[in-house]
Parts: sequence; C-alpha cells; structure tokens
Amino acid sequence: MRPLIAIDWGTSSLRGARLGTTGQVLESREFSRGILTVPPGQFEAVFHEHFGDWMQEEGALCLISGMAGSRQGWQEAPYCPCPAGFAELGQHLLWLQAERIALVPGLSCMGQDALNTPDVMRGEEVQIFGALQLAERDSATLVLPGTHSKWVQVHRGRVTHFQTFMTGEVYALLSQHSILGKTLDLNGVFDEAAFVQGVDQSQTAGSVLNKLFAVRTLGLFVRMSETALPSYLSGLLIGEELRTQTVNANSAPVILIGSNALTQRYTLALQHLGIACQSRGAEATWAGLFALASAC
Amino acid sequence: MRPLIAIDWGTSSLRGARLGTTGQVLESREFSRGILTVPPGQFEAVFHEHFGDWMQEEGALCLISGMAGSRQGWQEAPYCPCPAGFAELGQHLLWLQAERIALVPGLSCMGQDALNTPDVMRGEEVQIFGALQLAERDSATLVLPGTHSKWVQVHRGRVTHFQTFMTGEVYALLSQHSILGKTLDLNGVFDEAAFVQGVDQSQTAGSVLNKLFAVRTLGLFVRMSETALPSYLSGLLIGEELRTQTVNANSAPVILIGSNALTQRYTLALQHLGIACQSRGAEATWAGLFALASAC
Repeated sequence: MRPLIAIDWGTSSLRGARLGTTGQVLESREFSRGILTVPPGQFEAVFHEHFGDWMQEEGALCLISGMAGSRQGWQEAPYCPCPAGFAELGQHLLWLQAERIALVPGLSCMGQDALNTPDVMRGEEVQIFGALQLAERDSATLVLPGTHSKWVQVHRGRVTHFQTFMTGEVYALLSQHSILGKTLDLNGVFDEAAFVQGVDQSQTAGSVLNKLFAVRTLGLFVRMSETALPSYLSGLLIGEELRTQTVNANSAPVILIGSNALTQRYTLALQHLGIACQSRGAEATWAGLFALASAC
Repeated sequence: MRPLIAIDWGTSSLRGARLGTTGQVLESREFSRGILTVPPGQFEAVFHEHFGDWMQEEGALCLISGMAGSRQGWQEAPYCPCPAGFAELGQHLLWLQAERIALVPGLSCMGQDALNTPDVMRGEEVQIFGALQLAERDSATLVLPGTHSKWVQVHRGRVTHFQTFMTGEVYALLSQHSILGKTLDLNGVFDEAAFVQGVDQSQTAGSVLNKLFAVRTLGLFVRMSETALPSYLSGLLIGEELRTQTVNANSAPVILIGSNALTQRYTLALQHLGIACQSRGAEATWAGLFALASAC
C-alpha cells in the first residue's frame, strides 16, 4: 500500500489528510479554500501550496473527491452512472498526473418518473463507501443531511439509487429571507419539543407549503416562542423529507453521515418515527478514500 | 346610499376608488405608498394627502381594507374569527372617525390539527365577498393566488375555513436566491408545456423538497432549456399547492381572484387536473367594499 493523501475539496472548504498504511490519519489540515475561491487555472497551484510537502513523500498517491471534479473545479470528472460501486469509481478516476493524483468522479442516477429526472452527487459517494466499510455492511439505506440532503440505497456494495432533497437550503432561505424570518429568533438554542412538534405536523395530510405558514401564525398568536420557532421549522422540513421515505421499523438501521448538529436532529426525527439509525462523521471520507486507494 | 371611498391599503401599494351609487367606479388612483413606506403616526396624513379631496364630498363614507388594519398599519383592527360573513365584518369595523372612516378587519380561523394552528388574512376577505357578489353565488371554493396564496371555503355567505400557502414567496426565493437560480433564466416567456410537466410531476408520489432539485439537474443535463425551467418550477409549486385540495370535478367552478398573469397559470393547472374555474380581477375589491358599505 502506497502512502495516501486523501483530499475532500468541496464548494466552501478544502480538507486533506495524510493516511498511514492501515488507513489511520497521521495528519490533517483544513482550509477555507473551497472551489468557489479558486480562479480558473489556479487549482494545481493552490493544491501544491497546501499539500505540496505531503506529495514529496516517495510513492505518494493522492485521491481528491468533491466539487473539485465538477465543471467549476480543477477539471471535470464525468459522473459515473449508477449502479456503481468501488470497481466503477476506480475505473472512472480522472488522472491529473498518471499514477499520482486523481479526481474521484461523482455519481449520477436516472429517476423512474416521466422525465427520467437525473440526480447527482459529488463527494458523498466517498463518504458512503467509507461509512459502509466502517459499519462492515454492504447493503444499507444511508442519509447525508445538509444543504442538499441525500438518501441513498446501497445493495451489495453498489449504489443503486439516490435522491436529493433541498431541505437545508430551503431552511436557510425561509429562516433568513422570507416573511417567517420576521417572527423567529435564530439566536435561541435547539428546542427539542418544538422540533418534534414540527416532525409530527409534517406527517399529517396537507402540503408543506401550507404548514410552513404556521411558523408565522404561531408566532403572531404567541402560541410558540420566537426562539422555539426555528426548531419547529426545522422539524417541519426534516419531517417532510422523511415523510415520503419507505424505510420501515423492520429494516436494518439507517446510516447517517454528517456533522454532529445535523445527525442529532435526524436521529431525533427518525427515532420519533420508529426508524433505527446510527451516525458517522468526517472519518467516513478518509475511510472511503483509503478503501478506494486500496482497490485501485 | 352615501358616496363611498373604497381603499385597499396593502403592504406594497395604496389603491383607492370613488364609487357611484350603484357601485360603479367613478375614479381610481394607485400609489406606491404601501404601509411599509409609511412611518408610524403618519397614516392619517398620507391618507388625506392622497384622498383628502374625495373626502370633502358631502356624506362621504370611507372603508379601508388590507394591511392598514394590521399591527404595523394605521391602527390594529383585530381579526374577526371565522365563520364570518358580511354581518360579522360590519360589526367588527374599526371606526377611525365615527361614521366617516373605518378599517375593515381581517379574518382568522383555527386549524383542526394538534396545535390548532391559526391562519389569517387581511384584505382578501373583501375580495372574496366582492367576487361572490359578482358571481351571484353564496357558497364556493375560492383561490387567491399570490405571495401567500389563500384557499377559502364559503358556505351560505360566510367564510367557514381557509388555508394559506407560501407558494409565491417560495417561488421567488428559489428562483432568485437558491442554487436553482444558477441554471434558470427568468427572462424567457411563460412556457406552457414546461409548466404542465411541472404540474404533472407535482402530483406523483414523493416530496416537493426532492422534486425541486430536478430544476437543477434537468438544466445540468440539458434536458430542459434555461428559459423553460422557471415555468417548470412554477408548475411544480402551484401543482404542490393543488395536490392536497379536495375540490373535485363535480364541484361548482372554483373562483380565482388575482392578477391576469397568476390566474392564467392557476386556470391552466386546475383545468389540467379536471377542475373547472372562473376568474375575477381587481374589480372584486371595489365590489366587496361597496357591498359592505351597503350592509352597514
């Protein structure tokens, strides 16, 4: 096994880890140099500026996942179509320097609907395979909460289908830029009871476009405190995301991958709806890139 | 019948009409002086600046509907609880000058859900009663599309229940401030085919939080033109609003009240789903205030 430099280069941040021969993290770095901050043509320079010293190690291999492989990134690594597992990802690596530096492609899948609506991910595929390695499973439903939350089906080591939900972005828009922002106070702490009330409300008949307006009227009529309303809104939206999922209480636990703050909310909502789950954090990325490097 | 000065004073505009003894519009005016532009304590001055000449007419009565009666307006006219008809509205008028100038209260209703979620309207109640007068009906389902779209049930002349949908505001936020804005071009003309595809997609299983993401991927994969995507997004959201309504093809026509641009889209969506409808415009406001003046 060659020394691995694992890089996760996303929209807003650049993270890297130097891994040992068994995948252990020897050293890690994080920079506010997401791809949006890098001018076209400057990716190689920025990479070497931050990780050039690591690359001097004899035989070092570097795998880069995330938006660095998008059209707006270092170079476009075309999406690898689902179903896809390690083998397909490995075959679709885009080598920037032969045998030295490669971009990991994202995944695409086509919907079953009338428009065969495509869906895409970039960076999450590595976290998915890493989390499965850590959990020692080869089939699972995985959830990656965030700005664009992903629900992923993996069967026998291959991603068979996934769906993106705009939950995080809609929450940010509504709480900061809509009329709802006028009655809610984002400076409060997380209110578990209000969150669960939102989850319950999301499971009732009717449309979320209507339920959202309650965030205003519950404030106007002083039925809920201004500091509890953001948690209620969060519960409504995460609950709406969960409402259409077919996971049931008899399935193996859902694997959540994300920050503590988000996985705690999803855990609360899933458990409230009777769905078992377990969480993984950033370590999934390094585990995924290590497993990919081992396979290629 | 006394001469009536009918005023619709909303968040972003101030409109007024001088009506004849049969309700005909003798003269109308519109100003960009919504309540958000008026400093506290200045409402009376702004009113007289724009309509003082009309008020000099012998015996003139002025009724003002809309957000001027809200907490941020001229004075707060407390919501009139549903069920409510003309009689209730008339009893709850807030007289600013005895027998001369009154604010029309908005309506409130309490949901049947676990939280008894309140809902509210201000200004629409006058349009509703006006449209019913014009249609010579005393029971109907009415829809008032807009930033906050209202679905209203009227039975024997009284509003029994209504629901607000944040459709228009969510459309504006997503098309202007979300990642979807990067792939869509708002300068195109309305694309009827794309709109109807959005309406169809909204009726399928799944969550709108997922369906929305298609606006990005259909653009990324060049499945739909950038100028058609706003119409598709509009169809998805209006369709989501309609999805949970219980109106069926055997009901009397739904009455739509709003601008031409919006009522045309709702007509298209409703007819596509087999629901008959008829439209009313701004004349509903004047008809409603005239009917209210006649009754009080």
